[in-house]
Amino acid sequence: MTQQFERVALIGIGLIGSSIARAIKLHGLAGSVAISTRSAETLKRAEELKLGDVYTQSSAQAVQDADLVIVSVPVGASAAVAADIAPHLKPGAIVTDVGSTKASVVAQMAPHMPDTVHFIPGHPIAGTEYSGPDAGFADLFRGRWCILTPMPGADEGAKQTLRHFWETLGSMVEEMDPAHHDKVLAIVSHLPHIIAYNIVGTADDLETVTESEVIKYSASGFRDFTRLAASDPTMWRDICLHNKDAILEMLSRFSEDLASLQRAIRWGDGDKLFDMFTRTRAIRRSIIDAGQDVELPDFGRHVNDTKN
Amino acid sequence: MTQQFERVALIGIGLIGSSIARAIKLHGLAGSVAISTRSAETLKRAEELKLGDVYTQSSAQAVQDADLVIVSVPVGASAAVAADIAPHLKPGAIVTDVGSTKASVVAQMAPHMPDTVHFIPGHPIAGTEYSGPDAGFADLFRGRWCILTPMPGADEGAKQTLRHFWETLGSMVEEMDPAHHDKVLAIVSHLPHIIAYNIVGTADDLETVTESEVIKYSASGFRDFTRLAASDPTMWRDICLHNKDAILEMLSRFSEDLASLQRAIRWGDGDKLFDMFTRTRAIRRSIIDAGQDVELPDFGRHVNDTKN
Repeated sequence: MTQQFERVALIGIGLIGSSIARAIKLHGLAGSVAISTRSAETLKRAEELKLGDVYTQSSAQAVQDADLVIVSVPVGASAAVAADIAPHLKPGAIVTDVGSTKASVVAQMAPHMPDTVHFIPGHPIAGTEYSGPDAGFADLFRGRWCILTPMPGADEGAKQTLRHFWETLGSMVEEMDPAHHDKVLAIVSHLPHIIAYNIVGTADDLETVTESEVIKYSASGFRDFTRLAASDPTMWRDICLHNKDAILEMLSRFSEDLASLQRAIRWGDGDKLFDMFTRTRAIRRSIIDAGQDVELPDFGRHVNDTKN
Repeated sequence: MTQQFERVALIGIGLIGSSIARAIKLHGLAGSVAISTRSAETLKRAEELKLGDVYTQSSAQAVQDADLVIVSVPVGASAAVAADIAPHLKPGAIVTDVGSTKASVVAQMAPHMPDTVHFIPGHPIAGTEYSGPDAGFADLFRGRWCILTPMPGADEGAKQTLRHFWETLGSMVEEMDPAHHDKVLAIVSHLPHIIAYNIVGTADDLETVTESEVIKYSASGFRDFTRLAASDPTMWRDICLHNKDAILEMLSRFSEDLASLQRAIRWGDGDKLFDMFTRTRAIRRSIIDAGQDVELPDFGRHVNDTKN
């Protein structure tokens, strides 16, 4: 319990914002927390959940006197938020965000940021398929990476302060330039989500197989994709619109590889299929060894089954 | 603990075969269990695990005097197993299998089956990403569906007996014709696995993003696909070779839909993207309501995290 900031402002209080709020409270990191969201309903819910100390629909009001401002909104709303808060930021404040695309967020926010603040974009690589203030939990970031994409010449002290904040939440912190971040995320996050949304759509459109059959027999593989495809549609629309080039590149590579795999199936090339299906095991092993997934079969679902 | 069979023969003792063996023992369903596998090493391991009563590398020997024979081998080996066991089957025996494709298994096995036995192909819709006799567990089939694809004119009594067996293992049983089974599984299981193998391959081949980055940041979506892509390569090679037509049809639909989604991204069609990303939530909800997946965020991984 070491207070790191007098006042923190959280702009947006969905899954990520509310998890940060809970973690700040758990670790006693702020003297007070101001929460802002445009939706009156969401704001009311945040207050019921006692996520902060000050609640307002005005982001301009929330950031007043804040030493740390964390913007957690769909990336398409970044410019509007930046314009709203800019005139009210406290000199010396650290302004960061949690957006899943970084070049676009920099382009949207940086022009608005006064020279008197430290703008250090960020992206905690954590989440679940649920959204809204009820979905958050304090240890969401524990054991996960947080990528910072500081502007060239960013203040070292401010970077250290922000890094220390994420480390207190349990994260490991890495720095990257925004363009590289966007390429990395396009393959590890954006492509998987788009593919998941797509396959669920394909299954929903079949004439020969009923939806009831898809649901009943989903434990044979399909259900794994429905988790990602249950993610927040606004967030994912914005990601697709704001990381277009990197996503289109990854989609093109994916489709090229799939065409090659499809050809092997059509021509009955068993050796090629076997090779393709063998190389992938090592990556899962590495992910488990790196602590980024559980080793339990089926993600441990059977363990949960048994408890239910 | 009600014995249903004097003697059960399990041909193949991998994830599925060994789970059946454990469930038979747990529920006391057989007077004795004969286990057969071609690999001396696997057979030795099955014996160490005390999965049965009789152990042999000869499937012909295992099926002697068996009232129930369950073939649990990669589907490409079905014809060879059928030819081996056919002359040694006990009159009145039920012969079934657990293969993930059914038209091909029927085509491979039925011609060998003597008129004196009941050949009722089956497919329990259950599994994990692990394989081999150590990977099995008795409640793998609990709450999961088992599809039987009996031949026209199959004996009602034999069907009831087999149905009862699977129900004792905790499954719900459905009947289907083999061609329809193969279409259903192509979308709920085969396409998801092929897509998962493919995306893991694509990620592994990038020049701009390192494998270390893919692993570190995999919790943002990618790791979900690595589970399916860690499945047994021999099994999946055989499925691709033996359900070719249905798989190619589903792949073609998937690619068509993906091209449309890709176009929406390229042209920045936010409304279309939002619509596509919205319709998919209802399916996940239905799968959870049907008891085919857990409701816990992230498949309950965080629950497991906390325990570790």
